[in-house]
Parts: sequence; C-alpha cells; structure tokens
Amino acid sequence: MLDPVVSIIMGSDSDLHVMKEAAEILEYLEVSFECRIVSAHRTPHGMIEFAQEAEGREIQVIIAGAGGAAHLPGMVAALTTLPVIGVPVKSKSLNGVDSLHSIVQMPPGIPVATVAIDGAKNAGILAAQIIALQDENIRKNLKRYRVELEKMVQDKANRLEEVGYREYTL
Amino acid sequence: MLDPVVSIIMGSDSDLHVMKEAAEILEYLEVSFECRIVSAHRTPHGMIEFAQEAEGREIQVIIAGAGGAAHLPGMVAALTTLPVIGVPVKSKSLNGVDSLHSIVQMPPGIPVATVAIDGAKNAGILAAQIIALQDENIRKNLKRYRVELEKMVQDKANRLEEVGYREYTL
Amino acid sequence: MLDPVVSIIMGSDSDLHVMKEAAEILEYLEVSFECRIVSAHRTPHGMIEFAQEAEGREIQVIIAGAGGAAHLPGMVAALTTLPVIGVPVKSKSLNGVDSLHSIVQMPPGIPVATVAIDGAKNAGILAAQIIALQDENIRKNLKRYRVELEKMVQDKANRLEEVGYREYTL
Amino acid sequence: MLDPVVSIIMGSDSDLHVMKEAAEILEYLEVSFECRIVSAHRTPHGMIEFAQEAEGREIQVIIAGAGGAAHLPGMVAALTTLPVIGVPVKSKSLNGVDSLHSIVQMPPGIPVATVAIDGAKNAGILAAQIIALQDENIRKNLKRYRVELEKMVQDKANRLEEVGYREYTL
Amino acid sequence: MLDPVVSIIMGSDSDLHVMKEAAEILEYLEVSFECRIVSAHRTPHGMIEFAQEAEGREIQVIIAGAGGAAHLPGMVAALTTLPVIGVPVKSKSLNGVDSLHSIVQMPPGIPVATVAIDGAKNAGILAAQIIALQDENIRKNLKRYRVELEKMVQDKANRLEEVGYREYTL
Amino acid sequence: MLDPVVSIIMGSDSDLHVMKEAAEILEYLEVSFECRIVSAHRTPHGMIEFAQEAEGREIQVIIAGAGGAAHLPGMVAALTTLPVIGVPVKSKSLNGVDSLHSIVQMPPGIPVATVAIDGAKNAGILAAQIIALQDENIRKNLKRYRVELEKMVQDKANRLEEVGYREYTL
Amino acid sequence: MLDPVVSIIMGSDSDLHVMKEAAEILEYLEVSFECRIVSAHRTPHGMIEFAQEAEGREIQVIIAGAGGAAHLPGMVAALTTLPVIGVPVKSKSLNGVDSLHSIVQMPPGIPVATVAIDGAKNAGILAAQIIALQDENIRKNLKRYRVELEKMVQDKANRLEEVGYREYTL
Amino acid sequence: MLDPVVSIIMGSDSDLHVMKEAAEILEYLEVSFECRIVSAHRTPHGMIEFAQEAEGREIQVIIAGAGGAAHLPGMVAALTTLPVIGVPVKSKSLNGVDSLHSIVQMPPGIPVATVAIDGAKNAGILAAQIIALQDENIRKNLKRYRVELEKMVQDKANRLEEVGYREYTL
Repeated sequence: MLDPVVSIIMGSDSDLHVMKEAAEILEYLEVSFECRIVSAHRTPHGMIEFAQEAEGREIQVIIAGAGGAAHLPGMVAALTTLPVIGVPVKSKSLNGVDSLHSIVQMPPGIPVATVAIDGAKNAGILAAQIIALQDENIRKNLKRYRVELEKMVQDKANRLEEVGYREYTL
Repeated sequence: MLDPVVSIIMGSDSDLHVMKEAAEILEYLEVSFECRIVSAHRTPHGMIEFAQEAEGREIQVIIAGAGGAAHLPGMVAALTTLPVIGVPVKSKSLNGVDSLHSIVQMPPGIPVATVAIDGAKNAGILAAQIIALQDENIRKNLKRYRVELEKMVQDKANRLEEVGYREYTL
Repeated sequence: MLDPVVSIIMGSDSDLHVMKEAAEILEYLEVSFECRIVSAHRTPHGMIEFAQEAEGREIQVIIAGAGGAAHLPGMVAALTTLPVIGVPVKSKSLNGVDSLHSIVQMPPGIPVATVAIDGAKNAGILAAQIIALQDENIRKNLKRYRVELEKMVQDKANRLEEVGYREYTL
Repeated sequence: MLDPVVSIIMGSDSDLHVMKEAAEILEYLEVSFECRIVSAHRTPHGMIEFAQEAEGREIQVIIAGAGGAAHLPGMVAALTTLPVIGVPVKSKSLNGVDSLHSIVQMPPGIPVATVAIDGAKNAGILAAQIIALQDENIRKNLKRYRVELEKMVQDKANRLEEVGYREYTL
Repeated sequence: MLDPVVSIIMGSDSDLHVMKEAAEILEYLEVSFECRIVSAHRTPHGMIEFAQEAEGREIQVIIAGAGGAAHLPGMVAALTTLPVIGVPVKSKSLNGVDSLHSIVQMPPGIPVATVAIDGAKNAGILAAQIIALQDENIRKNLKRYRVELEKMVQDKANRLEEVGYREYTL
Repeated sequence: MLDPVVSIIMGSDSDLHVMKEAAEILEYLEVSFECRIVSAHRTPHGMIEFAQEAEGREIQVIIAGAGGAAHLPGMVAALTTLPVIGVPVKSKSLNGVDSLHSIVQMPPGIPVATVAIDGAKNAGILAAQIIALQDENIRKNLKRYRVELEKMVQDKANRLEEVGYREYTL
Repeated sequence: MLDPVVSIIMGSDSDLHVMKEAAEILEYLEVSFECRIVSAHRTPHGMIEFAQEAEGREIQVIIAGAGGAAHLPGMVAALTTLPVIGVPVKSKSLNGVDSLHSIVQMPPGIPVATVAIDGAKNAGILAAQIIALQDENIRKNLKRYRVELEKMVQDKANRLEEVGYREYTL
Repeated sequence: MLDPVVSIIMGSDSDLHVMKEAAEILEYLEVSFECRIVSAHRTPHGMIEFAQEAEGREIQVIIAGAGGAAHLPGMVAALTTLPVIGVPVKSKSLNGVDSLHSIVQMPPGIPVATVAIDGAKNAGILAAQIIALQDENIRKNLKRYRVELEKMVQDKANRLEEVGYREYTL
C-alpha cells in the first residue's frame, strides 16, 4: 500500500460512522490515506505529536472531524501549515450547530477549510481536489466522478420523466 | 506581591477590555492573580507549557477568555486538572454565540466552567468562591460583597420609591 | 457513609436520567455526595431553605440541573456563596437552548459555572476538581481518571489502526 | 393616590427605560400602579417578601421585567397565585432571546404571561385588560384607546394616500 | 353545565392533543370553558365573528393555540379587548420557534399573553388565575393545586432520599 | 395532455416525497404541469438550459425545491424572468433553516417567491393563483378549493362541538 | 394615472422606508400601483375590507410588508385568492427573524410568496414578473432591467480590473 | 507580473472591503492572484464562463465571497474541479448566518472549503497553504508568517506582563 497523502482523524470512534465516508470516496478516487483516532481533549499530547509530524510524513492534507466543542481541526491547524479540512459532526443537542461554530469561526491567521455538517464525503473530495493539483491521475478520476454524478442524476431525471411522479414515489 | 492563585488568560489583547473585569473584581476581593495573553491558535506551544506548569506554580483556578472558535479554555482544561473557567467573548458576527458553543459544549471528561458571554466579572467571582473554600478571608470578602450588592440595589429601589419613575429616568 | 461535600439537586425526577451521571462519576472519584429533588418553581420554600443551609452542612459545591426556564441553579447561587455548577437539561421543544440561556446568562454578581447541555458527568468532574484543591486523594483520582480516559481513546485508536475503518464499523 | 392594583417590578434600574412604558400606559388607562426595583439574584429575600405579600396588599396583577437569565418573573410567579406578566428585556449579547427563553419556557404548573422583547407597553395594556374584567371604567378606557389606535393609523393612512409615498418619506 | 368563562380555540384539530391540557386543568380547577376549532387562515370570517362576539357571550379569557405562522392569537386579540392567552404549538420543521415568534412578538397596542411552546396546561392555569381575581372558589382551588404540586414534588424528593438514585432510576 | 404551464423541478429525487404535493394540488386545480429533476450542482448545464428555454416552451411559473445550500431556485431565477417559487426542503441537520436562508435571502434584482419549509402544496397553490389571473377556470377552481378548505375545518369544528374534546381525542 | 394593478400595503408608516423600494421599482418598470397603510392589528376591519375588495378593484398582486409578529400578509392572503407577496421587515430585537417566520411559515392552503428580510425591491420585481405574464410591455421592461443590472455589475467588474483592488477601495 | 494562480471573485463591489484582506495576505505571501467581480445572480453567464475557463488559465484555487443567499461559491464549485474556498460575507439582517448556511451546507459531491464569516484573510492563507504543497517558496513564507504571528502575540504578552492590565488598557 502507498504511503498516505491524506490523513483522516477524528476525536472519537463514535464519529467513525460519519468519517468513513471520507475514506470511501478517497478510496474510490484512488487517493492514498490513513484513518486515525486522535482526541484534542483526551489525548492532547498525541494530537500535538500527530500535527507536528504530519508534514514530515509527507501527508499533504488533513481531514479532521469532531462534534460539540470541536477543537480538533483548529488545534491541528494551529500546529501545522498543511491545509486542514474540518468536518462538523452532528451533535446530540444542538444538531451540529455547535460543531460548525467551533470549526468554521477560526481567528485570522489559522484557517480551517470547513465542509457541511456530517459532510465527510465532501471533505474527501476536497482533499482529492487539492491533491489533484499535482497529480494528473486523481484529476482524471475527479472529472470522471463528476460525469458519473451527472449521469446518476440524469438517469433519475429520465426515469421520472418516463414513469411520472406518481409511479416514481410508489 | 503574593504569588498568584488565579491565572487570567486570554487569546488576544483585544479581549482585555472584557477580561479586565475579572482582574478588577479579584483585586477587590483580595484574591492574588496574574493576567496573561496566551493564544491556543497563535502560540500553541506557549499555551501547552502554560497549562502544564500551572499546577506546579500553585495556581488554583484558571480563567480563560476567548471569542469565535474559542478553543483556549477547553484546550487548557485538557492539559491540567485544575478547574478552568471559560469566558465566551462577544464576537463580531455571531455576538458570542459561536464563542459560547465552543466553550460550553465540551465532551464528557473535560469540563469547562462557563459563564455568560462577556461575563468576566462573574468568572472572577466564581474563582474567588472556589478559593474561598480554603480561605476564610476571601469567604468573608465574598459575603461582604454580596451585602454591598444587595445594598446597592436597595439604594436604587429606595430612590425609585421616593422620586417616582418619571424623575428617576430624567 | 461520609457527610456529603457535593450536593446534586434537580428540579424534577424527570431530570434524574441525566443527573445520575454526575452521581456516578463522583462515586467513581470517591467524592461524597447527596442527590436531591428541589424545585425552584414548585417547592420554592424548600429551595430557599436548602440553599441557605448548604454551607452550614459543610457542602462545598452544589450541582444543579434544570430544563426549560431553568431557574434553579441561578436562584440557589443567589442564596449562597458556595460555587454552583449548572447543568442545562435538554428540553423537548428547544433542545436545551432555553435551559442553557437560562443558566449561563447570569447577571454580574451571581455566577453559575455552566457545563454542556446534558453535561452532568462533566459537572461531577468539575466539582471533584474543585474539591481536589484541598484533597490530595481526589486529586490523585482525577489524575488517574485522565490517564484512563487517554488510555481508552488510545485503545480504540490502536484497534482502528489494526483492523482498518471497514472492519471497525461492521 | 389610590392603592396600586398593578405592581411593576424590575431587576435593575437599567431596565427602567423599557419598563416605564408599562407605567405610562397604565397611567393613561387610569389603572393605579406602583413601580419598584426587586432583584431575584441580588435581593432574593426582598423578592420573596414582595411576592408573598402582594396578594395581601390587594395587588391584582404583577408585571415583572428582566433581561439575560431572567428569573424574576418566574420566581415571583412561583411565590404567588396572582397573574404575573413577564417582559423580556433586550440583552446586550443575545438581543433578548435569552431573556425570552428564561421567561416564557416555564414548566407546567407555574405560568408567566409573556409579552414581546421590550414589550412593556403591551404588558401594561394586558394588565389593564385583566383589571377591566372587574372595572367598567378601565374597560371603557381600553375601548377608547383601541379607537384612538385605529384613528392614529387611519390618519397616517389618509396622509399617505393624499401626499403619496415620495412626499411622505421626505 | 355553566356558561363558559374561558374559550379555548385552536386553528386545527391537529393542535387538540396539545390544547386539551388546557381543558383538563380548567376542568380540574372548576373553571367553566368551551373548546372550539377556529382558523385564522381557513375560516377567517368565523374567526372574526368569534372574536367580536366573545365579550357579549360573557367570555372573560380566550386561550388560542396555533403553530407555524401562528396568527390566530394575535388576530383574535386585535378584535377584542378581552385578555388573550397564546399557546405556541410545536411545529414540524422549526420546533415551535416560528409559532413562538408569531405569537409573542406583537406590536405595541395589542398584547398576547404568551406561554411556553406546547404550554397549554399553563395557559389554563393562567386563565384560572385571571378568573380567580373575581372568584373566591377558583382562588381556593388554585391555592390547593399549588399545595398538591408541592406535595407531588416533595413525595418524589422523599422517595429519592429513601431509595437513592440508583434504585430510583431502575 | 395539455402543454405544461407550471414546471416543478427539484435537485434530487430525495426531494420528491415533498415536491409531489405541489403536483397533486396542481392536478386537483386543473393546472397543467411537468415534474423534473434538475440539479444546480450536479447538472449545472442541464439547469442552465432548462432555465433559458422555459419561457420559450410557454412555461409561466417555475416551482423549484431544494435543501441545504439550496441554490436551484435562485440560479433558475437568475436565468429567466418568469416568476420562480422556491420550496425550502427540510434538511437533516438544520431542519431546513439552511434551505430557507439559501432560498429567501436573494439579493436585490432577482426575487424568489419563497414558501414554508416543505411547503410544496402552497407552492402549487401560489402557482395556480398566478395562472388564475389569466384563466377564469382556474380562478373558479381556487375559489371552490377555498370553500372546501373552510368546510373541512368547519366540519371538524362541528364534530368537536358535538362530541367534546375528550371523545374527539380518543 | 392608470388604475393600480399592484397594491403595496404595510402595517405602519415606520415600514415605509423599506416598502418604498417596491414602489420605486414598480414605477421604474411602468407597473401601475397604489401604496397604503393597512394594519392587521390596529385596523383589522379596514384590512378585511381591503382584502375582500382588492380583486373587484382589478388589483392583480398584493405586496404586504410587516415586522415582528407580522400577520398582515398571511391574513390578507386568507381573505383573497390573489397572489400575496410578503416582505418581512427587519425588527428591532430579532432582526426580522420573527417577521420572516410569521410570514413564510403559512399553513397548507394559504400561501404567501415571501421575499428576503427588507426585500421590498424584489417584492416589486416579483409582482412585475407576475403582471408581465399578461403584459408584453412590462415583460420587455423586465428584460431591459436585467440587462442593465448585468451591465452595472459588468461596469464595476471592468473598473476593478482596470484600477486594481487597492485604488478601487480608496 | 506573474500569471495568477489564485482567483479572488465576489458577487458585488460592496464585498470588496471584506475580500481585499484575501488579496493583501496573498500579496504578502507572494502568491500571484487576480481579483474580480463575478455575480452568480446578475452575471450568470459571466460566472459560468469564468468557472469553466479557470482551470485552462492555470488558476489553481478560487476564492469566492458572497453574502445573503450566497450562491457564487457553490455554483462555481459545480462548474470546475479546482478547489473553491467560500467566504460568507456578513449580511445586514442575519449577520452572515444566511451566507454561512448558503455556502457551507453543500450537497455530497460538490464541496466548498468554507472559512469564517468575513474570514477573507484566512481564505487567502488557506489558498496559499494549498499552493505551498507544490511551491517551496510559499511554504517558507507561510512558516515565516506563522513565526511572525507568534511573535506578535508574544510581544503583546510581554508588554502586558511588564505594564500590567491597568496601564495596558489605558
């Protein structure tokens, strides 16, 4: 297996059901990645070590998912100059609004590239888009994926046109 | 001057106009304190060092103020077992709702004692209440402060009763 | 059994499924506590009596949970100078946003140390952190708990690394 | 002067610029009233005394204004069976959303009749509507006020029709 | 049966599962009432007629429940000078925040006494508190209800004290 | 079948369970329509073509439903001068608040006629009201529908009056 | 002057500074209109009369602006089958979120075509788009307006390209 | 001047006071860029052309700022596979919450890398971080910028320590 160029991290294994969508799409787009549990609050030293060593390990993009007072993406971003993509994980009480605020509202100097609440798939695609700037193969895969996406919608559009809305929703 | 038992920290000097109210009330209650700028995002190593050394320096309570994606209180709390009081500083776009979410919604295991948006004065009082559990003098000061608070309200109540609402609001 | 140093109160037994997490962690950390139902709105006289007598009974920290227009933590805080920790209980319509606002937004003079919505476990830990300032044994227990927390996350991290995200989520 | 039938209370004299609108409209509607400062958090004993004695003093309706973690209306309502009207005062950070939540979201058993944020005038009118159920004179005043309100709008409507929107907004 | 002094209205029979709690508590407090479906949007003429005739029918208080763009309480309030209590019914998408805003934020001149989202029981109690100002029997019933409420909480408090939180939550 | 005068479009077939209510009411009101899947993000070229050709195909009103970052209604509105009705579809994390904001907050120059979250039925009625300005038959159908709506509410009102609230809710 | 085909109404003359933008753009697009003050709450009978007579007076579209508990658009929509466009006027405490909720969240059966908060200009354009379906001249004006809009943006784009962002922002 | 590798676009020149911070930091970091006005709603054809040609012009990252119903970032992202960074510009009524929702909540397949409300500076830094993956010089500049950022905070921290909080806030 190739050395990973994308590192997917999350604060808890309870975020894995969301974050695995990043892994799946990266796999599909043939981007090498790793997938790890790193907690800003419960393993702060592990997080610091991870963030500081990522660039040396040839990681190019970090995807970090977290919920509630979601400090992982921002803290990792503070400890590296690699691009960090943040995934606000939907939280129990506030539906991920707290996660979104904690991730997107970073102060000037330290950006986190934030995607939608539970938007791990898009985090994977965004990482691939960044990698694709230097990798022709992934660029081709991304363009092919777009065509498939369009085709998938078009197929449904065609079916709706054929069978009508009543039969479609049966 | 006495060694500080409370440490007031904030991410930026732009938070000082809010956080100085913690300093002022601690001074008034005769609690020794220090006041520092420590940024989770811009001086992460300084923050880590600060949090790890606080207990050794005989600090008993940490008051941390921050705005926006406010990670300072929670990250310090992750790096010490001293009680950490978080002050959500009012932010420009979201009026401190983002700060509040980033500070109060901590995951199980790592609490931050959160006060109101811009509630630095109450952070100072809360710190004093904690210190007072072991310090008779501060306990007395707190009780005296309560009496003064009550008297201040009572004086206004009396004046309103005397002069009536029209004259009072002139 | 030891005299309680922490008092856990709540407005209704419907809050007990949340508040018991405070009790459980205090038990685990070997902090003596009591657990009571006290309603600001339905037993106001009982609440007043409770708040005024707490300090005399050698209670050191009060944990108060309430939902909706959650007045219990703030009213108790107004009637004692002991530190009061407020737990906003998730409410049916507003998901605890109302509880959070009613507890955290206290006016200058009367702080409530607020934790996350349904964050009773953290309320217990925070109480223990305050008690630990004067109690070496509890301090040791807290530090041990942190190590366990870290280990628990690390074990999951190791397992994820071993089996990969696919098998982990099966 | 007549004994008051409505009591207007507020937590702080900083609420008076809002609450005086209740006083002014009650004056206009010829409802006798008093206007007081009573703080749930800073003069809790004064508040308890006030609430318990109101009915004995022949008060019929209480109007209570408060901002932030606004506990005054709900706590007074818990200590009397007189109807209590709550006025959420606009707060600095959260624009009165916190005040509104703290006042309106009362638990089953203890209602507070809540009006709009800063809606003290309507609190006064509502109090008068309640008093009017037993007082023909106030009932007449209320109906006259409605007619005046309609006329005031109608006059503006007429002027707009006459002069057109351009001249009207000059 | 007695002529009703309270009229409970709602915009749709889908609100009845909420609004019946107003009916039940009024029955319990021995306040005579009626319960009707009147829609501001779907039966506007019926609503107008209802509002204009209520006072003549000796109705003293109107309780109006509605959800979403909840215009019923405010429109009825505009067409009568009787006190109108508004119940914001929880809505499907916005959890009743829209209902609350549409009911409580009335303009100066036309108040609606708003209770909590789905707070129909409190609407009933508030209506009884208003009626009680002229009715000794209902005043007694309300005071008895308060005592029962307190006793109910006290019984649970006692049981919790006896059996402990573990057994209580089994 | 008649050429469609209303075009119902949506970004994904997952919106069809909501959007079909627009189709059903248009059918009921005898307004000819088509129902299509057109995605602003996944088939942008198809969307552009659709929007530019609609007027030439004698479409008079476009109903566009979308959820989350809902760009379809606004983008179609930017590419035609036909009236566009936007339906914010309830989203998983933010309950459609994001959809509502993305649709209703259009900049000056390009309006979208927005209905309630999941309000596809009202979108259909609104389209019919616009068509009815030039079509007597549809105008008649709309008036008949209003009468039926009123009757439906009146029937329930009558039943509630007959059987009482207890039996009605059994 | 021509008989109006669009009627602009608002609840208060304090809304005129917003609503006049609807008037100005209609003037520009050569759509005949009237502009009136009609209050759902303060002149309910005037509102009812207005709504019921609008169709008979050959009005084709109604634009209704209101703030806070904004019932005017929805109530007018309930009393006519003409298309009603609602303009949520920005409110003092809640920034128009209350107005938006009160206008857009209409129940099934009675739509209001809602535009952005303070979006009166777009309300005027939308009305023109509806009128344009039967009026070639207005259709032409709308298309010309779009071209101008595009040109205005293009001119600024050109200037920015020429002078660069520094000089542009001087 | 070098060919631009970053393209900064915005919907209106009223966004330029925010977006110029992206330009300034890119200049400082020696990343070549262009700065343009492109409106999704008012120049849709120009936007389509821009998005489709960007990759061919060797643009590597697009920064798009927009406010309200902010469709520009998402629509551009739908028309290219280059990474698109979205800047939610603070809006007048909703403080940029609408902008944030419209930009960040993109559907699966089409990501937008969202930064804070008015976070144009961070958008520039994020773009530089992406470019730096292939450009040693910019990587060095970014690391130097981080050091400066840290030094700037440290200087303020030192000054606060020297002069104390009182003198600092004079």
